Amino acid sequence: MKLIIAVVQDKDSNRLRNEFIKANIGATRLSTSGGFLKSGNTTYMVGIADDRVQEVLDIIHETSRTRQQFMTPQVNLDAEDTTASYPVEVQVGGATVFVVPVDQFHQF
Amino acid sequence: MKLIIAVVQDKDSNRLRNEFIKANIGATRLSTSGGFLKSGNTTYMVGIADDRVQEVLDIIHETSRTRQQFMTPQVNLDAEDTTASYPVEVQVGGATVFVVPVDQFHQF
Amino acid sequence: MKLIIAVVQDKDSNRLRNEFIKANIGATRLSTSGGFLKSGNTTYMVGIADDRVQEVLDIIHETSRTRQQFMTPQVNLDAEDTTASYPVEVQVGGATVFVVPVDQFHQF
Ligand code: NI
Ligand code: NI
Ligand code: NI
Repeated sequence: MKLIIAVVQDKDSNRLRNEFIKANIGATRLSTSGGFLKSGNTTYMVGIADDRVQEVLDIIHETSRTRQQFMTPQVNLDAEDTTASYPVEVQVGGATVFVVPVDQFHQF
Repeated sequence: MKLIIAVVQDKDSNRLRNEFIKANIGATRLSTSGGFLKSGNTTYMVGIADDRVQEVLDIIHETSRTRQQFMTPQVNLDAEDTTASYPVEVQVGGATVFVVPVDQFHQF
Repeated sequence: MKLIIAVVQDKDSNRLRNEFIKANIGATRLSTSGGFLKSGNTTYMVGIADDRVQEVLDIIHETSRTRQQFMTPQVNLDAEDTTASYPVEVQVGGATVFVVPVDQFHQF
């Protein structure tokens, strides 16, 4: 048994939760802020058998890893400068993950 | 020294905290949601000497374990169906508990 | 790699976060309440290489340890008793810290 603690961006949080549900993986969501990642983040605690640790890591990696994304900056309608707004490439996502040993695991 | 992380239903949270206080066990409450348990839940972190781990587990089990409870469903007063409302047996409670090894414990 | 979990008083929380930032230490803040410490508290999770554990402990000790502080009690303006309010020495701060072993650490 391992306890996996994963800090992910709020942006990826719901998608990650849905992937956990699909894979029948119980996860508790903690309210967290700041720190490892620049924007708002969420921490998941997952209790998992040793032979499924890699599966959980893969799901987190697939859903939440750092990647480039094209975003269109918001146009300031009040500005006199009416230059068109072009999409720019920004970095989103990112996950910090701890796999912690567990001496005992109980479900009462 | 062990770190015990316990996820319990909100419903049992205050009773568990009171039992911890009575037993002179320091517990930190984390705001959590969803996951291991169906309804709203709360996570407690407890730092405890090895020889008191079982005592903490017993308190959590006694206070928060899954059990059957009779509840009377709410009556819909607007409904034409005036059938009396009978108590039904529902499952409440439940706890997911991790006992995690600790390399160092400090109180500054 | 270790996971350091530190519960500190809200009062010391921002100062601790600033010290972590200065030392380039990533920390995730959890919303917590009650327990180890009497007043409102905050929990930080820090992932850190083994050879920097002592540095993190020193920062927490320096910023958040229990200490005496002189405070002037608030004067009750409505009271007939107009005795001057003298500063009293009170205990503030305090930190509870767990250093937890980590099997795997990933940043995706
Ligand atoms: Ni039982
Ligand atoms: Ni000291
Ligand atoms: Ni990758």
